[in-house]
Order: sequence, then structure tokens, then C-alpha cells
Amino acid sequence: MKYIESVKNPQVKQWKKLLTKKERDKTGKYLVEGFHLVEEALKEEIVLEVIINEETEMPAHFQVEGTELIYVKNDIMKAICDTEAPQGIAAVCEQKSTSMASINPDKLLLIDAVQDPGNIGTMIRTADAAGIDAVILGEGCADLYNPKVVRSTQGSLFHMPVIKGNLSEIIDELKQGGTPVYGTALEGASPFEEVEKSSRFALLVGNEGQGVSKELLEKTTKNLYIPIYGKSESLNVGIAAGILMYHLRKSI
Amino acid sequence: MKYIESVKNPQVKQWKKLLTKKERDKTGKYLVEGFHLVEEALKEEIVLEVIINEETEMPAHFQVEGTELIYVKNDIMKAICDTEAPQGIAAVCEQKSTSMASINPDKLLLIDAVQDPGNIGTMIRTADAAGIDAVILGEGCADLYNPKVVRSTQGSLFHMPVIKGNLSEIIDELKQGGTPVYGTALEGASPFEEVEKSSRFALLVGNEGQGVSKELLEKTTKNLYIPIYGKSESLNVGIAAGILMYHLRKSI
Repeated sequence: MKYIESVKNPQVKQWKKLLTKKERDKTGKYLVEGFHLVEEALKEEIVLEVIINEETEMPAHFQVEGTELIYVKNDIMKAICDTEAPQGIAAVCEQKSTSMASINPDKLLLIDAVQDPGNIGTMIRTADAAGIDAVILGEGCADLYNPKVVRSTQGSLFHMPVIKGNLSEIIDELKQGGTPVYGTALEGASPFEEVEKSSRFALLVGNEGQGVSKELLEKTTKNLYIPIYGKSESLNVGIAAGILMYHLRKSI
Repeated sequence: MKYIESVKNPQVKQWKKLLTKKERDKTGKYLVEGFHLVEEALKEEIVLEVIINEETEMPAHFQVEGTELIYVKNDIMKAICDTEAPQGIAAVCEQKSTSMASINPDKLLLIDAVQDPGNIGTMIRTADAAGIDAVILGEGCADLYNPKVVRSTQGSLFHMPVIKGNLSEIIDELKQGGTPVYGTALEGASPFEEVEKSSRFALLVGNEGQGVSKELLEKTTKNLYIPIYGKSESLNVGIAAGILMYHLRKSI
């Protein structure tokens, strides 16, 4: 058992750097916080180090065999966590790399330039629930390993394949392979309930303010909208993605 | 035109107090931030004062006739706004009070103890989009006039009736009036797609961790769940509410 007392310890400095995208990209590692996420990450065997507040008791059922445990003072935990009131446990995990070739591309969620980390994380969680096979993040999306994205996935990040890719090329490939690609748009689109049943689909959602880019919308099989019955101007992108994934999923 | 230079000005202190629930309850006022929300609030004629950064230009199309305009220094705007990078415009609005007697109770969203302000705000926005007639907040919900709730509604707060009420009593009244009340639960519930068509409904959703309280679930007409096809344990409450409102709305 290792114990670190000072925030100036080089290992603590290294952990803090993982709060930046640059360091995460460089090392292929990221931090997860809280009991639920650390437990899920341990199950998936992606944890390199578990970091525990010296006053926190390690839950007996956590599968920590073979993983390094490091006890730390509370101010270290605060320094390395993104949340205001850390739960007393965190872990350094290794990023998994997934390629298009390794996934089952029957049901996909494609995300174009969604910037809010909470929206990205919630969509990964919802895609997991809806039985989507993989999520593809295009240009301009929040970083997958941003602490708020990781937290919002509620653990779905650990088992859902998420790939960074060129959406334009992927849409071309999907269409060539016979998978219909449904964009989301407010104009020139059909009500979502009109979509024919299909055993395969890709759903494409876009930026909070601008929606899906015009270039991508022109490439899709069909573009859909969710009718607004009241006075609000639009739906949150995560909500819209949830309604559409469950609708498309259901009709199979 | 009024101009305030010092953060110590008594009016600035009064605005800052509106960041607390206590003061909002006492005065019946609340703050809204940003161009979109201030514009929407002006349209609904609920704005008492518009507060503008001295360097910000008031958009010409804003309907500000009869509303007091107060120009302030940038550090005052920062002090009264909840966001880290305020947009340079805010407004003091008056709370509207709505009662059960004044609404059309055909389609309702009942919220039990949802604590995250973003979830409350997003559900009000989605309810507005889905053509829900009113949202009822039960005990334990985040304060409706919390700045993050207001922001997440994206303006739907201004035209959607939102009522604080006793959910147990309201469920009894709705059932007596012939409106089916659908709870959401993971156990002892039916898949949501089995719900019969109905021209009236109330949907009841609950706390992020605990779900709807047992006492309320025992009172509903029927409890529903959204099937999980993947490995995630649950859906975010706002996403679940969106899927269910659009499903129930659609089947009418």
C-alpha cells in the first residue's frame, strides 16, 4: 500500500495534468471519480491505479486484485477531481481504442460538433440503454475523456464502443453498405414517426446551436424532425437523440 | 437612463440576494441572464428591470418600452450572474403564480423530488415542446427560479404553467376526474409501449437516484418502464421523461 501526503508529489502533479486534454491525448490515460464509476471501471479491467482518500474505506466487493492502491490526503483528492465535493475515490484508467472495423455497425449514433460535455456523456449513456452498437464522434465534439463527459456516461463509456471519425466519410461508407442514415434538421425534414422500419440505421445529431452541418445533412438518406407542439423553439440535443433512438430502435 | 458604478450600491446588493431561494421567495422576483432569455421574458411582459453592461449594445428589436433600463459596470454584471462568462444583459422578473384551478389539466408532467436544476429546466423545456399543459413540482424538487433551472428551460418557464403542489393529493384528484396517471418504475411496471391511447394523461417521474417515491407509485393508474437493451443501468430522468412524453403525446 502506497501513501502520498503532499500535493507537490510528482505523481499528484501527473494526475492533475490528466485534467487537460493535451495530457490525456499524450498518455492515453484519464481520470474517473466516485464510487460508482470506479467500481464499473474495475469490472471492465481498465484501471491502472485506484486513488483513495485516507479516510475513505475501500468497499469490500471492489475487484481491486492486481491494481495499485494509493492512499492520499483529502487536499490531494480535491486537487485531482473535477467535482466540487469529491467522493473520496478516483482511478486512473487507460483509454480503449476502437476502430470502425472492430464494431458491429448495425445501429449507430453519429454526433456532429456537440460541445457540451454533459450532452455527449448523456447521449453515450442513452445510446447504451437503447442498444446502439457504437457512437461516432465527429469534429468539434467535446473530448470523450473530459471528466464531465465521463461522469455523465454513468459508466457506459466503459463498455460502449466510441470512435472518433470523419462523419462525411463514414456516412458514405454506411450508405454504400445499405445502412440508412437519418439526419436531424428543422427544415426540409420529415416528422420522425414517418420513418420506415429498418433492421439497421445510423442517427446523426448535431451542435446545440447550429444543428447538424449543412454538408452532412445533404449526404443523409433522409432528414427527420421532432414536431414541436408547444411554444419552445427546440429540444435539447440529448433529449432529441433519446426520443429518436428509442423510436428507431423500437420499430425494428 | 440609470447608471450604477459601484458593486456596493444597495440595488446591486438587492440583485445579488436574488441568487438565494430565500430572497426569491420573499420578494416574488428572480433574475434571468443572457440575450435569449431576456428577449423572451420581455415578450411575456414579466420584466421589472433590464440590467445592461455599459459596453453592451441593447438590441434594437427588444421590446423595452415601459421597462426600466439600468446600465452597470462589468464587475456588477459578474457579481449578479450565475454563469462564469455573463453575456452582458440580465433582467429582474416577477414570478407568475399559477394554480391547478387555472390550468387545462389534460396533459400533465408531475415531478417528484428531482434535485438537479438542469434536469428540472430541461424537463420544463421538453414538456413545452411536447404540448404538455402544465408541469407540477412536488416536494424536494430544485427551486423553479434557481438560475440554472431558468437557463435550462430556454424560455419555456415564461409561458409553461408550472405549479408547486402536493403530488399525492393531485394524483387523487386526477384519478377521480378520469385522467390516467402513469408512474415510472423499474419494478412492477409495464413496458411503456403497452400504454393504451388516451386523450388525457399525467406522467409522473422521480428523483435521480431513488426514482418516484413508493407511496406515489402505489397510487398511480399504472407504472411504466423504458426497456434497457444495452448494459447501462438506467436513463437520465430528463431523457426518460422526453421519451415518455413524446410517446404518450403521439398516441392521442
